[in-house]
Amino acid sequence: MLKKPLHQVAGHQASEGQLGPLIDDSGHFYKPLQSDERGSNELAFYTSLSSNTRIPDHICRFFPVFYGTQLLEASDGSGLHPHLVLQDLVSGHLNPDSGSPEKKLIQKFSAKDVRLALRKFVSSNAAIDSASDLDCSFASVVYGGSNGILAQLLELKAWFEDQTIFHFYSCSVLLLYEKELALKGRSSGAEVKLIDFAHVVEGRGIIDHNFLGGLCSLIKFISEIHTTPGEYTNKACLQEAEKNQFCSENGINE
Amino acid sequence: MLKKPLHQVAGHQASEGQLGPLIDDSGHFYKPLQSDERGSNELAFYTSLSSNTRIPDHICRFFPVFYGTQLLEASDGSGLHPHLVLQDLVSGHLNPDSGSPEKKLIQKFSAKDVRLALRKFVSSNAAIDSASDLDCSFASVVYGGSNGILAQLLELKAWFEDQTIFHFYSCSVLLLYEKELALKGRSSGAEVKLIDFAHVVEGRGIIDHNFLGGLCSLIKFISEIHTTPGEYTNKACLQEAEKNQFCSENGINE
Repeated sequence: MLKKPLHQVAGHQASEGQLGPLIDDSGHFYKPLQSDERGSNELAFYTSLSSNTRIPDHICRFFPVFYGTQLLEASDGSGLHPHLVLQDLVSGHLNPDSGSPEKKLIQKFSAKDVRLALRKFVSSNAAIDSASDLDCSFASVVYGGSNGILAQLLELKAWFEDQTIFHFYSCSVLLLYEKELALKGRSSGAEVKLIDFAHVVEGRGIIDHNFLGGLCSLIKFISEIHTTPGEYTNKACLQEAEKNQFCSENGINE
Repeated sequence: MLKKPLHQVAGHQASEGQLGPLIDDSGHFYKPLQSDERGSNELAFYTSLSSNTRIPDHICRFFPVFYGTQLLEASDGSGLHPHLVLQDLVSGHLNPDSGSPEKKLIQKFSAKDVRLALRKFVSSNAAIDSASDLDCSFASVVYGGSNGILAQLLELKAWFEDQTIFHFYSCSVLLLYEKELALKGRSSGAEVKLIDFAHVVEGRGIIDHNFLGGLCSLIKFISEIHTTPGEYTNKACLQEAEKNQFCSENGINE
């Protein structure tokens, strides 16, 4: 019994006339294989990942489990279409009462936007407008601790400092936790996952500086919030000023 | 009195029929302005850097001092040509007896090559063929210590974790030290400099993940040598195997 996911973090939403992912009740996520080279590339990556013995187990857990491919009736009713069968990352987490906060981060967000998103993500009053009033009350149970997001990101970073197997262009980092547990001040079941591998290429012996740098930056931003959750810095504003200065020096008007 | 530099680390060597840099006896390095947008881009960068008050002094020291531009007879005798007037990074260091070891690192070297270059750079027997016999005898005085290369790279990394003013595409990291001092086991006058800014672009509020990741990786490699200078790991060989595995899974034969 397949259905369209309520919470969807990877790829396009399934909708009328558009091919989207499906889920079942057993924790599987069916992602339509893109028909161009992005599809074959993503399949090649998952195949390589699941058979490559050089990737340690503690790193494999950062990726969705891959169960193979399956021909399924497409979500738009257009007939049979090949799907990647993946672990549904949200299914284990979803709590019908409070929902499961999740944040998908990609590398091209501005530093200002990422800082704000990371503060909202762990705030019990995330709906408010004023960034400086965000309480960041879940920062310690979500970001901190030996199983928290910071610890997981540091583990991932250590691997990226060494691995030259893959370059993860346009890959996303997904952060998840259980709000119900965080509200009780308990270990929040926080998870870091990498998703979207349509643009992964071979590393050819070279470190993936771009992704490694994204991780370093994410770790820095989260460390700041974890260390001083109540302190909202004016860095974003300063950086706007810096930008304007550089633009004007180059004679660029925007 | 201008002459062609003996030691040249930035740009192309001056030679017959080719425009190259010049130096004088006062520690200036004259870099011919490239005639296309790379030239105007590099000039815009140096101008912005020297006037941008958001860049702290302890970061400015990682860049060559910029003295402006000057029309000079070109090194190939083709007439007057505009030159960037920069600090000659090598002039203060050069020791006629032992030379001044220097290493220019760019991001597209393989991890294996960078590891080897960083070991050779601090070895008194750098001329030998076998990588495993390199003694890395200068590792502690060049890489270590409060003024060593590791400390400087960590300072630079802290800035790159925050700054969104510039993105340093195709920029190089130059490492220098005084061999004479290193041989005596004294503080080695080690320096980290950034050079080659023809492809720097505005950061537009976004962290320069690519360069930040290059720094993280460099710090990791140097830390390994500093911690265990005598230990030559088999990582490079393992990574070759990983590469072959990924290639064969994708049906690529090289």
